[in-house]
Amino acid sequence: MPFLKDDRRIIYEVGMDRTIFTRQEFQHRVERARALMTELRLDAIMVNSEKNVEYFSGYASDLWASPTRPFYFVLPRVGEPIAVLPQGADVAWLNSSWAERMTTWPAPRPENEGVTELASEIKKVKQQFGRVGIEMGPESRIGMTLNDALQLLDALRPLEVADCSGLCRRLRIIKSDAEIARIEKACTIASDAFDKLPEMITPGSTEKQVANRFMAAMIAGGADKVLFMAMGAGPGGYETIILRPSQRTLERGDILAIDTGAEYGGYFCDFDRTLAIGTPGDEARRVYEALYRATDAGLAAARPGNKAADLYHAQVNAIEAAGVTPATMGRYGHGLGKMLTEWPSNKPDDHTILQPGMVMTIEPGIAYGNGKVMVQEENIVITDDGCRLLSRRAHVEMPVVYW
Amino acid sequence: MPFLKDDRRIIYEVGMDRTIFTRQEFQHRVERARALMTELRLDAIMVNSEKNVEYFSGYASDLWASPTRPFYFVLPRVGEPIAVLPQGADVAWLNSSWAERMTTWPAPRPENEGVTELASEIKKVKQQFGRVGIEMGPESRIGMTLNDALQLLDALRPLEVADCSGLCRRLRIIKSDAEIARIEKACTIASDAFDKLPEMITPGSTEKQVANRFMAAMIAGGADKVLFMAMGAGPGGYETIILRPSQRTLERGDILAIDTGAEYGGYFCDFDRTLAIGTPGDEARRVYEALYRATDAGLAAARPGNKAADLYHAQVNAIEAAGVTPATMGRYGHGLGKMLTEWPSNKPDDHTILQPGMVMTIEPGIAYGNGKVMVQEENIVITDDGCRLLSRRAHVEMPVVYW
Repeated sequence: MPFLKDDRRIIYEVGMDRTIFTRQEFQHRVERARALMTELRLDAIMVNSEKNVEYFSGYASDLWASPTRPFYFVLPRVGEPIAVLPQGADVAWLNSSWAERMTTWPAPRPENEGVTELASEIKKVKQQFGRVGIEMGPESRIGMTLNDALQLLDALRPLEVADCSGLCRRLRIIKSDAEIARIEKACTIASDAFDKLPEMITPGSTEKQVANRFMAAMIAGGADKVLFMAMGAGPGGYETIILRPSQRTLERGDILAIDTGAEYGGYFCDFDRTLAIGTPGDEARRVYEALYRATDAGLAAARPGNKAADLYHAQVNAIEAAGVTPATMGRYGHGLGKMLTEWPSNKPDDHTILQPGMVMTIEPGIAYGNGKVMVQEENIVITDDGCRLLSRRAHVEMPVVYW
Repeated sequence: MPFLKDDRRIIYEVGMDRTIFTRQEFQHRVERARALMTELRLDAIMVNSEKNVEYFSGYASDLWASPTRPFYFVLPRVGEPIAVLPQGADVAWLNSSWAERMTTWPAPRPENEGVTELASEIKKVKQQFGRVGIEMGPESRIGMTLNDALQLLDALRPLEVADCSGLCRRLRIIKSDAEIARIEKACTIASDAFDKLPEMITPGSTEKQVANRFMAAMIAGGADKVLFMAMGAGPGGYETIILRPSQRTLERGDILAIDTGAEYGGYFCDFDRTLAIGTPGDEARRVYEALYRATDAGLAAARPGNKAADLYHAQVNAIEAAGVTPATMGRYGHGLGKMLTEWPSNKPDDHTILQPGMVMTIEPGIAYGNGKVMVQEENIVITDDGCRLLSRRAHVEMPVVYW
């Protein structure tokens, strides 16, 4: 299989050093995918979500922000892969992907965006099992309309269609060194901005103004994008941390949290920091310190052989031991990588076994006061004998901005 | 129907003035939707994509960046709407939506993320036609897994399921004054950054460094996000304008274009600017000026009663009259608003009639040299008797950065 011509400009090699994806990196992904295809009895997989197309092909474009034109990538178990692209995207494809074979359709063509061409290419794949995988399962999204997906299922007959989102999960859940380096770079960019956050919180500022200073610092620090910019703030604490910043003016006595997902080279960080404007009350300080200890417990449990559920229990047990109330959040951390959140989930019924190369968040939450919640989050990578922090760890005590 | 309690913090009112969405704005959207439901014989619509949930409910969160938990909003033709939410999202919902009724499921629940609860709520809607609309058609995306969508189609039987993406299109294609004000604000933020672009292009800079300075300027200027940041650059011109910036160092003799989609309050701008590093060649200058004249022609054709196809022909005719070659791009502009690209498409077979309140791009492209392309884009709103520019218009002559 041909990989990456030497003279091709590699738009996707955003990093200068260990964050570079080599042709060997893509070759390795393809080989692992093919081994799983054999195991799962699939003649090919077809991916159509931004992140899976990027993962296998290297094709990187912001045009996914437009829903007009979908992109498809067919990776057969045997033979060369083929991209099925809207007309006009071929130059961009060849500038960022190692995969050279492609076919196009005249887009936009609203009633059938490439489905006919795609089905035809899939049917040309060498068949041994009569089965093809598409993204259908947990945490997947299709990058086409539901009508086109239904048309495709129909057009693929008599081939059997199976879910390949589990296959993608098994590949992507273990990160390569270059992938980890990109996530770590995203974490460092965010850590640097968090270090400067106190000086961004000036009297008279609104939540939105502080958020924009914080985002600008991350962009200036090299982030490609900031897709997740959540803020919670209020007198003595916040009630939720999944909302965008508001136009409310911050006040002395507020406790404020920013949770952010900055992207670098197609990889996310995802962590938050809480701080107080003026000396916080005793309860809030106790809650913050209990979160720090719960994070300690999560970090201690983060090692190969333990399960995602163990990370949950370690954190919850530490919170209960501190005499405070675990917040009901569904999970206490999760995987991350090409998306803000990936598999697994740190929750009681997720028995995913931790392995070296998994990148995850440790994210305890405590409910207190009258409907308030406080959270703390770190990003880690599982190593051979434990874990390593990718985020610069939160302060032991809640940082305070004095006005 | 209850709308927006007075004492509720309206996270979504990001604007200070005419960009504010009042409760009347949402009421108007709901009333228009219901009139169309009657026309289309639908008892309810269920939306599940970020932008349609936001459009109808006001719910605004960056958590759409995570694929773990979907959100659903059911708007019946008669009776109160209901949000079907992952557990824990209720506080955030109530802080940003006018719609108070909700039900939740214990999320994450990977094999069935709220489908059972959603189907049950849809079936409780007062039935007159036995038909419910979901997003299936052109330029729509579902915000759930394909497996969950197929489960939902099954669970809704014996109700008939129809496509409601056309209904959403008919509502959203005409923007309210507050929506136009948000798009204009996004355009102004980008225009201000483009004005400063020449001074950001310093000797020794890479594409990526320039892009990050440009993005930081937009964020500092108030943008919420920059989802689309494309750059094309090369000696004498660029070959494509849909790629992300590379690590290539810019050089004297390069012609560079940035195409950007910045978001403000949930609304996009989408336009580009081209400039030269050092005096450009005659051919590039001629191409640039022909693009400017083609834009003139597009603007002149942009008035109520004309069709999207007329905008295409006006631009292409002007390019041909200038003796240069129209680029093959599928369309010469499109609608925009809550997404980077929306309906209609300025192409020969799009007969959408222009109406006041439509926000669009005029986007001619010219092919020249050896595989080069040059583009120019403006954002406009159709008015009662023509159109009004929302972007600050490109210079008549190609701007030059002298090193």
